[in-house]
Amino acid sequence: MSLNTFGHLFRVTTWGESHGPALGATVDGCPPNVPVEEAMLQQWLDKRKPGQNKYTTQRREPDAVKILSGVFEGKTTGTPVQLMIENTDQRSKDYGDISEKFRPGHADITYFQKYGNRDYRGGGRSSARETAARVAAGGLARAALETLAPGIEIKGYMTRMGVHEIDRSRIDWDEVERNPFWTPDAVAAGVFAEYLDGLRKSGSSVGAVIEVVARGVPAGLGAPIYGKLDTDLAAAMMSINAVKGVEIGEGMGAAELTGEANADEIFMSDDGQPVYSSNHAGGILGGISTGQDVVVRFAVKPTSSILTTRQTITKSGEAAEIITKGRHDPCVGIRAVPVGEAMMACVILDHLLLHRGQIGENQGTIG
Amino acid sequence: MSLNTFGHLFRVTTWGESHGPALGATVDGCPPNVPVEEAMLQQWLDKRKPGQNKYTTQRREPDAVKILSGVFEGKTTGTPVQLMIENTDQRSKDYGDISEKFRPGHADITYFQKYGNRDYRGGGRSSARETAARVAAGGLARAALETLAPGIEIKGYMTRMGVHEIDRSRIDWDEVERNPFWTPDAVAAGVFAEYLDGLRKSGSSVGAVIEVVARGVPAGLGAPIYGKLDTDLAAAMMSINAVKGVEIGEGMGAAELTGEANADEIFMSDDGQPVYSSNHAGGILGGISTGQDVVVRFAVKPTSSILTTRQTITKSGEAAEIITKGRHDPCVGIRAVPVGEAMMACVILDHLLLHRGQIGENQGTIG
Amino acid sequence: MSLNTFGHLFRVTTWGESHGPALGATVDGCPPNVPVEEAMLQQWLDKRKPGQNKYTTQRREPDAVKILSGVFEGKTTGTPVQLMIENTDQRSKDYGDISEKFRPGHADITYFQKYGNRDYRGGGRSSARETAARVAAGGLARAALETLAPGIEIKGYMTRMGVHEIDRSRIDWDEVERNPFWTPDAVAAGVFAEYLDGLRKSGSSVGAVIEVVARGVPAGLGAPIYGKLDTDLAAAMMSINAVKGVEIGEGMGAAELTGEANADEIFMSDDGQPVYSSNHAGGILGGISTGQDVVVRFAVKPTSSILTTRQTITKSGEAAEIITKGRHDPCVGIRAVPVGEAMMACVILDHLLLHRGQIGENQGTIG
Amino acid sequence: MSLNTFGHLFRVTTWGESHGPALGATVDGCPPNVPVEEAMLQQWLDKRKPGQNKYTTQRREPDAVKILSGVFEGKTTGTPVQLMIENTDQRSKDYGDISEKFRPGHADITYFQKYGNRDYRGGGRSSARETAARVAAGGLARAALETLAPGIEIKGYMTRMGVHEIDRSRIDWDEVERNPFWTPDAVAAGVFAEYLDGLRKSGSSVGAVIEVVARGVPAGLGAPIYGKLDTDLAAAMMSINAVKGVEIGEGMGAAELTGEANADEIFMSDDGQPVYSSNHAGGILGGISTGQDVVVRFAVKPTSSILTTRQTITKSGEAAEIITKGRHDPCVGIRAVPVGEAMMACVILDHLLLHRGQIGENQGTIG
Repeated sequence: MSLNTFGHLFRVTTWGESHGPALGATVDGCPPNVPVEEAMLQQWLDKRKPGQNKYTTQRREPDAVKILSGVFEGKTTGTPVQLMIENTDQRSKDYGDISEKFRPGHADITYFQKYGNRDYRGGGRSSARETAARVAAGGLARAALETLAPGIEIKGYMTRMGVHEIDRSRIDWDEVERNPFWTPDAVAAGVFAEYLDGLRKSGSSVGAVIEVVARGVPAGLGAPIYGKLDTDLAAAMMSINAVKGVEIGEGMGAAELTGEANADEIFMSDDGQPVYSSNHAGGILGGISTGQDVVVRFAVKPTSSILTTRQTITKSGEAAEIITKGRHDPCVGIRAVPVGEAMMACVILDHLLLHRGQIGENQGTIG
Repeated sequence: MSLNTFGHLFRVTTWGESHGPALGATVDGCPPNVPVEEAMLQQWLDKRKPGQNKYTTQRREPDAVKILSGVFEGKTTGTPVQLMIENTDQRSKDYGDISEKFRPGHADITYFQKYGNRDYRGGGRSSARETAARVAAGGLARAALETLAPGIEIKGYMTRMGVHEIDRSRIDWDEVERNPFWTPDAVAAGVFAEYLDGLRKSGSSVGAVIEVVARGVPAGLGAPIYGKLDTDLAAAMMSINAVKGVEIGEGMGAAELTGEANADEIFMSDDGQPVYSSNHAGGILGGISTGQDVVVRFAVKPTSSILTTRQTITKSGEAAEIITKGRHDPCVGIRAVPVGEAMMACVILDHLLLHRGQIGENQGTIG
Repeated sequence: MSLNTFGHLFRVTTWGESHGPALGATVDGCPPNVPVEEAMLQQWLDKRKPGQNKYTTQRREPDAVKILSGVFEGKTTGTPVQLMIENTDQRSKDYGDISEKFRPGHADITYFQKYGNRDYRGGGRSSARETAARVAAGGLARAALETLAPGIEIKGYMTRMGVHEIDRSRIDWDEVERNPFWTPDAVAAGVFAEYLDGLRKSGSSVGAVIEVVARGVPAGLGAPIYGKLDTDLAAAMMSINAVKGVEIGEGMGAAELTGEANADEIFMSDDGQPVYSSNHAGGILGGISTGQDVVVRFAVKPTSSILTTRQTITKSGEAAEIITKGRHDPCVGIRAVPVGEAMMACVILDHLLLHRGQIGENQGTIG
Repeated sequence: MSLNTFGHLFRVTTWGESHGPALGATVDGCPPNVPVEEAMLQQWLDKRKPGQNKYTTQRREPDAVKILSGVFEGKTTGTPVQLMIENTDQRSKDYGDISEKFRPGHADITYFQKYGNRDYRGGGRSSARETAARVAAGGLARAALETLAPGIEIKGYMTRMGVHEIDRSRIDWDEVERNPFWTPDAVAAGVFAEYLDGLRKSGSSVGAVIEVVARGVPAGLGAPIYGKLDTDLAAAMMSINAVKGVEIGEGMGAAELTGEANADEIFMSDDGQPVYSSNHAGGILGGISTGQDVVVRFAVKPTSSILTTRQTITKSGEAAEIITKGRHDPCVGIRAVPVGEAMMACVILDHLLLHRGQIGENQGTIG
């Protein structure tokens, strides 16, 4: 069961609301003896932290993570790790309007219809702040991966903002850290900046596509059916707020290809490993990793909080108009980059443990 | 844990290989007192059955489902329902070539790398035949939905085959049953026919996009995080063989929209229900159903079995060439339509039960 | 998966160690709109709190529970409830001895053998302090039960301390709160007092049997196989530290009975409900509640921390002697009473939700 | 979720009723490359098979297990193993009486109250025939254990029948196979025979205690909390029909001991392994195996089907009398022996996989 839990063996349960005292992640099943300290997690939270530039919400949160359990003398013990982030900037304000009216595109109306109540302060549980807990848990997953499978590298970046897409021939992973959009295309970074500035000033917002790549994942992770690596990656990404689409490798574009165009031919490398002529599959065949880059993309919808008046209704069913003021991200996709990376790290670690549990060291070898 | 299991309360575990004696689905958690008989399930299996026209594999399987448990005197008892489908057309042939060589685009190599063995007969567990078990389970889910929430209608159809897409203004649900592609656009049906005929004759294959809509789903199903209705739908569709992308509502296209374009404004209907100006959200806000049509799309890659020679390797690491002969679907997307419907039925029923478990009858009402 | 999680729909994950900054319970799946405030949980924690009399450990912990999430305006929201208890009395001391030597009867050696490390401070994760988190979660379960099924009453009490057993003819629930042993037999309370005083003074310890009864549980909770109400109760009680046996109804004694002696005959009550001539079954038949009192008993072993020297080994495999000084309960069974009640509350609530999920309101009625 | 499923990674879902066409177990998560054939499973089913002597039901069932999936060329593939047992002796008879009246001590009334229906033929899902599926799955678990951890030996035997208990000084594992009661005490076998013969002739029945020992289990299996090895063993045994109590090591008797009497002192063996002066703990400390024998006991209640008239009610609430004729075991505990062994095998294997998943090969070593 998993209303607020993700993962099979490395299990992350997030908790907390935008304007409560704290939020966090309870992480069960982490391998023991993984060196971890708060600073190792904090680096990823700092990537996601709001208020770092004019393109993200001006809410100021230090997002300082505290490890409350499961780590002793600098190493994980194998028991649950509690990662807590206190909410500090719970700016006092009048929520009266939002508490009565449902914001279009937000979860307000469906939460109320489901639960018969709603923590309307800053979106409550549906706030993008929840993703801070994911990033903290993802930091722990990265630390564990470093111990268990040192060669794995996980990198997320923006490939599309609204109508503008990157040029794939210009992808440069080093560029990602150099611009506020985490995009690997330096030219696109300039285009995105100007584009988003315009949208931001007009009180509008826009969607984005994020690609997350895991390099160095060993072949053999995943399962044929249901427990497929791609099933869990799709679930992981779709579970992030505002995500509306997920792709593996060619993704939706695979529908347009013929069998000849889509087949990744197989060869032996000089060092006796299978290599492929291409990676249409996104590193996953039949639910199981091939050893190539695992490639996932997801689309984030535009922030629903905009300055244009929209029609809505109140809790009592009256027609109403609403303008969503406040501190919002014009492109929430930017801060989704470290979140996508965190989910990738959690899924890969989880499947490493699952694979080790079922198969141990005796997996098949070619040649 | 769910290597071969799907669902939280309505749990489907499929088992069986392409060329073993049988395959099936063990369904646990079905509500009791649901009227069900084999013919009710068989109707959906007949939609998926191979060999019905020249566009699907010529393997001849009756795909007759037997109910071995959990139904007594024509009604479910509330205990596990075992749905078994015997394999009859296990044509004796020499698998020598496939048993040694890995077919590009197939799960052959990754299965071997994971398990150190592989049932190479017809793909074994990775065969599309596994989806017959899903369709049987989906039939049971439909029967349960009819009892629990009679107004729900689930319809799947093809919206793209390779480079050809339907015209959405021509969508007509009645048309879906009239052509072998399960497409709702009569004009597209003709285009698809000619296009696929050419591909089939040249021994090629092509991908497709399937859309599945659930109409009449009550508001309130799902959960804010991880256990989101869209998370489970994405997982459900991505768990089907050959699926590479999943979209909810606008899907990947949401990335291109502004907040103004994407917002579904809310009104009250004359009969006192919330209604929306549009359905960009695909019927799900914040992980919870809105009461609008739930709209999911997924892309199926082209069948990897093609008549063109491809480069590959053998189990012992030798370079080799392979041509995949045999009885294959040139567009496996066609038979994915009833499979997508089945997964939708399972997810909706599962979330109905989850919602009833946590909330009971006391959900929120507007007005 | 459930290394540190208990429950199907009402899911409790506890976290934290004896001497870390805090411990707690992450509770997912709680029904919404349950009135709850910290004081409602605190009353049960106060029952379990150490240092209240000479029969329990002199460690002084306020065990004050804080609700960090999932409750808004005095009601549960349906999202995860985080219950945190800060550790305050982490008396600074030299753990050198315990850190190197394994205490017999404690988890020291097995933790080390499993994880290759161990938080030796006060037992770390294996400390009885973990049960404070269970009691907090149980308080939330009780609050939810009060909303969903108001007639249910849960009562735990001690029926045996070492060689002394209560006289069942003297059971009086009102007596339970009047003595420090939570025993329902006033005479036994006196016997226990004298007996335990002697053991305490000699630095010894002793085991106990706790009985927990749930009155007013509706018929129909549970499942025939695996998910049986008694399976989950047995797991719940056995999951508590130091528990070595669990019984339902007649328990181990059922082995000595004949079919005639064991059968609870069935009659109709004057108000048209099935009633039974006896309750050998402990309120559960075929895994499903009968509507009678649900009766569970469990045995708690004697505290392993005693003042007598015992032989042991060190981490490096050297022979050693150990005396466990410190603040310990001579009969940890006393404080197990509220813990057993908490587990009962969690199991009953969980099964109420499961039953509602699968069956809804349509269960069978007799007559 | 686990209404009819048991286990975390090695997951067994049983299905089927007493008088349906078949019953079986769907086993997911089995390690690949385990040599297994039907005869290896059949040997355990033959132990449980009815009609072998006058002390068990005269129903004649071959209980022949068929492997329908997950095994290829004599080895497990790592995908689901379907184990099916066809029901052959579904003696046609008039169930009219049982279909209307609830048999005291049976699940009849609670099933009806839960589900609003009931498969009354031979107990339906609550029939002891369900345990045949467990025994088949346990056989597979044993085969996997033989591959993964060859030194493990699992042995179950009867230690009490009604008022008669074995003399522990006479325990001889070789004796177990020599008498129809699977008791390790040759003298007790004679006593049990005479005792049960008398009960059988008078149409009565009696309970029993079964002990199951796993020898050679490595130290380190289990988890500190909830996922404890003893939690899962308790759940496993309590999930068997008619079981009312479960004990680990000293069990309920631990309550009577002092800390001095209960402590198992620790020494180093000559070959550098920790050894213990005694095994009060039953091989489990803090939820984790010590390397000693894992010792579990459970009590089976007397068969409720007896020839003495009992008072009951009908579905419509009328008072009635009932005598349960038919083919029944006077001491169902006899056939519970292989069932208990099967559950032990499943739990140990499951925890081996869990341990390997979380910890791998890097567990702690002493010395």
